[in-house]
Amino acid sequence: MTKRETPDIIIGRLPVYLRALRHMEAQGKGTTSSQELGEQVGISAAQIRKDLSQFGEFGKQGTGYSIAFLIGKLREILKVDRVWDVVVVGMGDMGHAIARYQGFADRGFRISQVFDSDPAKIGERIGSFVVQDTRELGTAIRKADVRIAMLCVPAAAAQQVANQLVEAGVRAILNYAPINLNVPKGVWVQYLDPTVGLQRMTYYLE
Amino acid sequence: MTKRETPDIIIGRLPVYLRALRHMEAQGKGTTSSQELGEQVGISAAQIRKDLSQFGEFGKQGTGYSIAFLIGKLREILKVDRVWDVVVVGMGDMGHAIARYQGFADRGFRISQVFDSDPAKIGERIGSFVVQDTRELGTAIRKADVRIAMLCVPAAAAQQVANQLVEAGVRAILNYAPINLNVPKGVWVQYLDPTVGLQRMTYYLE
Repeated sequence: MTKRETPDIIIGRLPVYLRALRHMEAQGKGTTSSQELGEQVGISAAQIRKDLSQFGEFGKQGTGYSIAFLIGKLREILKVDRVWDVVVVGMGDMGHAIARYQGFADRGFRISQVFDSDPAKIGERIGSFVVQDTRELGTAIRKADVRIAMLCVPAAAAQQVANQLVEAGVRAILNYAPINLNVPKGVWVQYLDPTVGLQRMTYYLE
Repeated sequence: MTKRETPDIIIGRLPVYLRALRHMEAQGKGTTSSQELGEQVGISAAQIRKDLSQFGEFGKQGTGYSIAFLIGKLREILKVDRVWDVVVVGMGDMGHAIARYQGFADRGFRISQVFDSDPAKIGERIGSFVVQDTRELGTAIRKADVRIAMLCVPAAAAQQVANQLVEAGVRAILNYAPINLNVPKGVWVQYLDPTVGLQRMTYYLE
């Protein structure tokens, strides 16, 4: 089965499995089962086995999965067996928090540059970064050959900055702005709008 | 069709439709079509029509959807035709950013109280809030009858705080901590882990 045939919904679950497996590994565990992993992530054992079977035979009947082996495989499949440079655009409160976030280390990502268009912020030091002028975005991204960006600008500016990012070669955008982005085929966007997450839950509340 | 029969994946798309419709409304538009909405959100017109048909007949053949009417219906379905109080736990960089975020206003939510367990942070003023002691979480939530929380504590503390929240009556948790939470049936969790979003995209990168 080629990649293009694996539904994106399955791809979306792999990072969750990986996170849970690394958590188990940190607790000193060596092996796990689809049952145990399923309880950790709230997904049925059958679904996990089906998802993983898309990519090969990773477990042995009766002995379960080697956690280290499965982590290695998932990192390979998700291409986070390397470290990707990521630029962050928009140094408001959210961009600030992301620039200082320590959670990317060891999970495949490294923030390499941060940008803002506000003259009062350009040149400011945030964590280990100096805020660069958004006007230099295209040049900086091309020079460093960056493929991934996090977008933390206000909604009104998001599409225009996304266009700049794509033109400069970015192919994956994690969008914190509460707006849908129109991007060409071959560019991927994931959305992190807290209100969307909240509204998805209120539906179920009494 | 009763609520329980509507797949959660459909519920998950409704807030995205609502966001796009409000964007259209803000631009002064009065009506739209499933085609136009589909282009905005990157979902096929047929899928949108199918999703909305779960809840009734909202559009007229040939004339499309009244944006104001559809916004009203979606707000009603998602129960954001009211304002929900939300508590935020964990006043690190991310919690700080959320406490100061203006994007919830008018989308159904109002942050009402913020908490941290660090004595250095308790009593601090953040935006319009005074940080309260996490030990008072249960009492404060019961007193104010809050159902929704955002969890911005470190991964190692997340499950324990989630237990406190659930015990106090919280039924929906937006979790920023990079860890899966185990919660009883009837409690909803949505996850906002940026690394999961990034890893879902690197799969597709060359």
